Amino acid sequence: MKLAHIRSMKFSIVGTGNAAWHFTKMLLEADHTLLQVYARQPHKADEFVAWFGGEHAIEPEELSTENDLVILAVSDQGISEVAAKIPAEVKLAHTSGGTSLSVLPQKQRAVIWPLQSLTEGVDIHYKNMPMCVQANDDEWQHELVRVFGGISDKCFGVSEEQRVALHMAAVWANNFSNYMFRVAEQICKVHELPFHVLQPLIDETAQKLHSTSPLAAQTGPANRGDLNTIKRHLEMLRNNKELSDLYRSISEQIMNHRNGF
Amino acid sequence: MKLAHIRSMKFSIVGTGNAAWHFTKMLLEADHTLLQVYARQPHKADEFVAWFGGEHAIEPEELSTENDLVILAVSDQGISEVAAKIPAEVKLAHTSGGTSLSVLPQKQRAVIWPLQSLTEGVDIHYKNMPMCVQANDDEWQHELVRVFGGISDKCFGVSEEQRVALHMAAVWANNFSNYMFRVAEQICKVHELPFHVLQPLIDETAQKLHSTSPLAAQTGPANRGDLNTIKRHLEMLRNNKELSDLYRSISEQIMNHRNGF
Repeated sequence: MKLAHIRSMKFSIVGTGNAAWHFTKMLLEADHTLLQVYARQPHKADEFVAWFGGEHAIEPEELSTENDLVILAVSDQGISEVAAKIPAEVKLAHTSGGTSLSVLPQKQRAVIWPLQSLTEGVDIHYKNMPMCVQANDDEWQHELVRVFGGISDKCFGVSEEQRVALHMAAVWANNFSNYMFRVAEQICKVHELPFHVLQPLIDETAQKLHSTSPLAAQTGPANRGDLNTIKRHLEMLRNNKELSDLYRSISEQIMNHRNGF
Repeated sequence: MKLAHIRSMKFSIVGTGNAAWHFTKMLLEADHTLLQVYARQPHKADEFVAWFGGEHAIEPEELSTENDLVILAVSDQGISEVAAKIPAEVKLAHTSGGTSLSVLPQKQRAVIWPLQSLTEGVDIHYKNMPMCVQANDDEWQHELVRVFGGISDKCFGVSEEQRVALHMAAVWANNFSNYMFRVAEQICKVHELPFHVLQPLIDETAQKLHSTSPLAAQTGPANRGDLNTIKRHLEMLRNNKELSDLYRSISEQIMNHRNGF
């Protein structure tokens, strides 16, 4: 039975956290049917069922092959352990961008990764939420892209390599940019300046990318080859080898790639 | 005559660009009086005067000592050249965070640096706009903080060292974080992925800082010590020494400073 041919898909959820909450909500809103809920802590599955409906599966072995899709929405560390207890015939998808598809031992396995933080109770406009889908068989991947494409306008299929690349790109865009903010905060602290005064600049930096590319948005001393300012900043960092090395590396790369990579 | 004792300050503007436009607007809205406008291109000064009022000063030498403040709102590179032509008795302030106070030869000199991008015609809620003020004499700095404190609730005085530190912090928060977005874009490009799918994560990274510190907001493989993921990412960057070195450095620093600097 192909998902593309059915109006309402039968799905089940493993886990009751933020991702489980949002996947259940988005699928129910799209008129799919919740069959079962399994959680390592039974009382949480009971609460979840009381809220969303479906049946409480007491053991992962009870997850039915009647499901068109079972979503494994547990912490990254829990994925392989819980997946091992789920029948091999169940069509299983985890939701972690940083976890390989191959950790699932199921015959039909997938990754459905929403590129947005999911927090229980915080509304998300699912239509605008980027999601990437990877599956171990092309036909199923197409079907999943079609199902989730009914929920999000930004749903797209990826290969294993693309998913890893996108996960790494997210590390630069999110984790590493946040480290830049941490360094800025530290500099403010050392010089008794309030970090929050940088918030408008930080907001602008993110906001600009809605209408321009990061290459076009690049400004600053390195971008205009202002070596005097760079020297003054490095002088100020002279007692911090880590930060002065990092300042130098990033400035050099900005200068080297002023016109693109 | 102290600024603090006068209700309406007399000011003049040098330049007619984005900063000139916003400084004039914010000061007029605060009931200060525009005396003169000077610009290197006379027709631009005429247009500016037609819009905002005041008199067109044909030469910088004509800028009057009757002014309580003359704002030098020209490009960073133009500051010292134009300042040299303005009478030494004029109370002069430039508006560039990256330019030393000492490039102004005037007896009373200041820097008034708004930490926000100023674009002509784009409204800014001046009350929330951070501005820092540095002057070569304490009493005048106090007066300027009071005058601009009437415009912005986030106006504060700084020393030369603090201004340089804040400028460098802005380089990390704005220019260097933007470079992280550029690398993310490049990775997407190489792997034929759409960069815009990272926009929600980028927006979130900036947005989070309204309610939490960058230290608390830090997530990612390095922050949780996930060496397998780091290894997989470095493997993907194996043919790009620049980016793999930078990935390694930032990850190491995140690991070293997981609990703060």
